[in-house]
Amino acid sequence: MSDHTSNAGYPTPRDAELAFYTAFVECDLTAMDGVWAHDGVSCVHPGAAVLIGRDAVMRSWRNILGDAMQPQMQVKLLRRTEGDTVAVHMVEERISTGQEAAAETALVLATNVYQRDAEGWRLLSHHASLVAQPPAAEAPEEPTLQ
Amino acid sequence: MSDHTSNAGYPTPRDAELAFYTAFVECDLTAMDGVWAHDGVSCVHPGAAVLIGRDAVMRSWRNILGDAMQPQMQVKLLRRTEGDTVAVHMVEERISTGQEAAAETALVLATNVYQRDAEGWRLLSHHASLVAQPPAAEAPEEPTLQ
Repeated sequence: MSDHTSNAGYPTPRDAELAFYTAFVECDLTAMDGVWAHDGVSCVHPGAAVLIGRDAVMRSWRNILGDAMQPQMQVKLLRRTEGDTVAVHMVEERISTGQEAAAETALVLATNVYQRDAEGWRLLSHHASLVAQPPAAEAPEEPTLQ
Repeated sequence: MSDHTSNAGYPTPRDAELAFYTAFVECDLTAMDGVWAHDGVSCVHPGAAVLIGRDAVMRSWRNILGDAMQPQMQVKLLRRTEGDTVAVHMVEERISTGQEAAAETALVLATNVYQRDAEGWRLLSHHASLVAQPPAAEAPEEPTLQ
């Protein structure tokens, strides 16, 4: 029915996540295609409207990954919630592009939703947003004023 | 252990979602408190860093809901993915504040994650982002260039 790369799915949501970010930093569109679920996908890039359906989502990744320079990325899993068939990971992405000294780093938060079918886990939804002001180095809890 | 409002949870994720947005538009902090799960909550307001834990999340809602004017809000469910214990809804929020003629409308996308425990469904995570440029009225699919 569709021409996207078929793979066997991933044994855990974390494996699917690793594959997603590896495809992202390696600008590997074929691998990226294999990470996403067959149906029902959606994607929100920072500041953008929601993309619904495989065609729109993969077109956006084709544009992003085709943009030449591979990004540097540090990804940190902040929270995970995992059910039998649906898992949600909140991750922090520090994305740097450009040449070393001139590199700019963006701080992005993403809620990634994974779904399990008979074949394994795949990415169903990616919702990313830019953090306008990166937190201070230590990001301490605000003191409670009483 | 905690002093947040206890309720029996909600029978469906959709009920929890309705309660969340009702509390939001009615600026009802007590109701808002009852919507959120007991533990493991996180919240990303548009453009902001992630808030983790009940104290930080509820403090943010106290600030938002204490901001006097009740917003007008239209909420549209775009996608839903529901497992036995975890459900994810992608919603579009059109939020208007200010007096009629001077009202400004913001278009926000939110990924809401609900979790079911023995008592019912509650909100576990809310990740909201502003859409920088509202889509055109019809937002037609881009034609495929071949």
